[in-house]
Amino acid sequence: MKEKLIERRRKLLGPNFSTFYKNPVHIVRGNGVWLWDANGEKYLDCYNNVPHVGHCHPEVVKAIADQAKKLNTHTRYLHEGILDYLDRLLAKHHKAIGSAIMVCSGSEANDIALRMAEVKTGNRGVIVTDATYHGNTSAVSQLGYDRNIQSVGNHIRYVRAPDNFRESTETDLSESEYFKNNVCAAINSLQEAGHGVSALLICSVFFNEGFPNLENGFLDATIECIRDAGGVVISDEVQPGFGRVGTNWWGYQKVGLEPEIVTMGKPMANGHPVACVATSSEIMELFRQNYSYFNTFGGNPVSCAAASATLDVIENEDLIRNALLVGKYAREGLEELKKEFPQIKQVRGSGLFFGAEMRGDDNKPLSKFALKIVEKMREKKILLSVLGKNRNTLKIRPPMVFSKNNVDYLIENLRDVMKENECEN
Amino acid sequence: MKEKLIERRRKLLGPNFSTFYKNPVHIVRGNGVWLWDANGEKYLDCYNNVPHVGHCHPEVVKAIADQAKKLNTHTRYLHEGILDYLDRLLAKHHKAIGSAIMVCSGSEANDIALRMAEVKTGNRGVIVTDATYHGNTSAVSQLGYDRNIQSVGNHIRYVRAPDNFRESTETDLSESEYFKNNVCAAINSLQEAGHGVSALLICSVFFNEGFPNLENGFLDATIECIRDAGGVVISDEVQPGFGRVGTNWWGYQKVGLEPEIVTMGKPMANGHPVACVATSSEIMELFRQNYSYFNTFGGNPVSCAAASATLDVIENEDLIRNALLVGKYAREGLEELKKEFPQIKQVRGSGLFFGAEMRGDDNKPLSKFALKIVEKMREKKILLSVLGKNRNTLKIRPPMVFSKNNVDYLIENLRDVMKENECEN
Repeated sequence: MKEKLIERRRKLLGPNFSTFYKNPVHIVRGNGVWLWDANGEKYLDCYNNVPHVGHCHPEVVKAIADQAKKLNTHTRYLHEGILDYLDRLLAKHHKAIGSAIMVCSGSEANDIALRMAEVKTGNRGVIVTDATYHGNTSAVSQLGYDRNIQSVGNHIRYVRAPDNFRESTETDLSESEYFKNNVCAAINSLQEAGHGVSALLICSVFFNEGFPNLENGFLDATIECIRDAGGVVISDEVQPGFGRVGTNWWGYQKVGLEPEIVTMGKPMANGHPVACVATSSEIMELFRQNYSYFNTFGGNPVSCAAASATLDVIENEDLIRNALLVGKYAREGLEELKKEFPQIKQVRGSGLFFGAEMRGDDNKPLSKFALKIVEKMREKKILLSVLGKNRNTLKIRPPMVFSKNNVDYLIENLRDVMKENECEN
Repeated sequence: MKEKLIERRRKLLGPNFSTFYKNPVHIVRGNGVWLWDANGEKYLDCYNNVPHVGHCHPEVVKAIADQAKKLNTHTRYLHEGILDYLDRLLAKHHKAIGSAIMVCSGSEANDIALRMAEVKTGNRGVIVTDATYHGNTSAVSQLGYDRNIQSVGNHIRYVRAPDNFRESTETDLSESEYFKNNVCAAINSLQEAGHGVSALLICSVFFNEGFPNLENGFLDATIECIRDAGGVVISDEVQPGFGRVGTNWWGYQKVGLEPEIVTMGKPMANGHPVACVATSSEIMELFRQNYSYFNTFGGNPVSCAAASATLDVIENEDLIRNALLVGKYAREGLEELKKEFPQIKQVRGSGLFFGAEMRGDDNKPLSKFALKIVEKMREKKILLSVLGKNRNTLKIRPPMVFSKNNVDYLIENLRDVMKENECEN
């Protein structure tokens, strides 16, 4: 059965389109933090952030069904849906963020954000870290996985991502000082090349980079340099947003910065294809003067109903507080494991995005071992992954309804898997 | 009430984000070809192609609700939804089109198509008409409305769109010969600039260009030139696809060409944000070797259920045949009007995408008059628009369940509006 599906994928989706896990899972049903495969086996979902308020949350499902039955059209007609939703959403941002464009994906949002920065600054240069991901359009895929394909020109600079295990030979500077210096070098390089500085596009808590522990105010000096050079800050909230970090609605609030442009995506409507780019009225007006942007599906009544119901559930079920408490509890559990297993070198995270970095006695990244743990956890029917530059950090990012009981179950199984598997990097 | 909504839009969506019509409509409910505003007034929808099988079609709504209740996740897990759907969809294309990527919007599809053409040909140059639209990402918006912003470099060539009312002084050549010559000049220009020819990206029935009447085989010689130059053909089926043209599933089949890459969007899932790019296994493999493309929402089980239900309805309700018959009937009705009103210079269209070009006695485009008719029709609660380079052609593109009765109602009101309004261009 599974072999047949894999063969059909090869044919229909391309010969080299991958699945998660050596032994892929065939998921047919979901509820809360649980997924079921075609054999009725139950999996604990410790990976999926898109079903933010839990798989198939009945309130979101009902909102989608009710609105789809009533009307689904575009934003060239008047409709309260998008206005009521944006009123609520924008109120959760700092005051300067006053208007928005709703789109279908975080990629579309970041693609617009770059153009907004460009019309605001008159510059083209973009700075990102060298271990990030900001989406899949031609313009933004080069900022991430496709950074080797610079077909649109040499206007991107990749700065070394912050890292808690920097080689001590690299520099004596603090991580913050070092990051700032690298960004300044990128600024100079962009200015010399004639691009100027348009934007620093950043996930303020560096989730894809392996969410390193960083001192308070880590980004402050860097942001000052960007603004001094005439650039703006785009905060990519696709992962940290909607309370994932536990302390705040947005990652940028947690680290204390006020970006000119914010992008939001994945968890926004619990899986319904919705995303958004928000900015000041001034930048929005400039953007619309320069570009004839229209998004057919973006902001349609069904999308707004789904997004609105997702906000309701976050608020009514107090899920940001849950992310804080359960995330803390999970990190405590991982700290216990760390005492038992020396391969766990550091436990990190914010709210319900957490994990543990695996390194050997020699401090070398245990990338193979981390991946092995992920595969073995999958066999125990617990879904998680790895991330970071060396892909040696466990990536645990469950739906926001994850409970302390779920944590216990996760840690217990992780303990077993760590015990049962030798480290053979 | 309406003024308040307009004011809220100004604030939340930006000061210069437009609506349709001077007196915008505030739509709250839809069913089949009908829309209702907040006062309970009923409008005949002669414009919206996205609700392809009719607003809020119960089968599509049910498919979305049922699947949203069961599971909505991504394509890194195995799931039959996307495979069953693509099996059906790809079978409707020519044999070379064997694999696909599902995405959220036609823009995302065309953005990928350009990269596919590039990896296949090793070239970057793209040729489009000067009156087209292929989407809103940075890479594709420049092919359309934003063609004056060439920020990604000078690798695009715009060729004059075919036109039934060419100035006779322009050339003695046939429209087909003239088009081919213009494309050849673009090919030469791209080769001289070192870009080479990657793709001709085209709507094979030139809907945005005003859907001119063209002889059989109009594109044949042009396509040969593109392929001789090492380029491929991308057929943008976002508008003509899914039977809109009445004679076939796809516009390219109607004009008898076999594109290497096909993009599909808007009507695909009756308004749920779904789109797709399909190509040969060979091009897909090349693309995946070169790009780490992944689309979080693309091809999720709910999107596939919505798209699949839309195919069901097209087939079960015989909507392609309906488009053919009702479209023909509508053009006959317009031809009758043409006898009464000399401003109607030519009636054109394919299936349920049709309209009439308005020109004066001197053959000059009646752009203002066409727009006035659209506004007056809106006051009669019939929604349509204008298009073409001069925006002097009525754009009538209703849901595919449009009936002969609907046509009668449309024509009757159009007659009244033509009678009541002086031509004052």
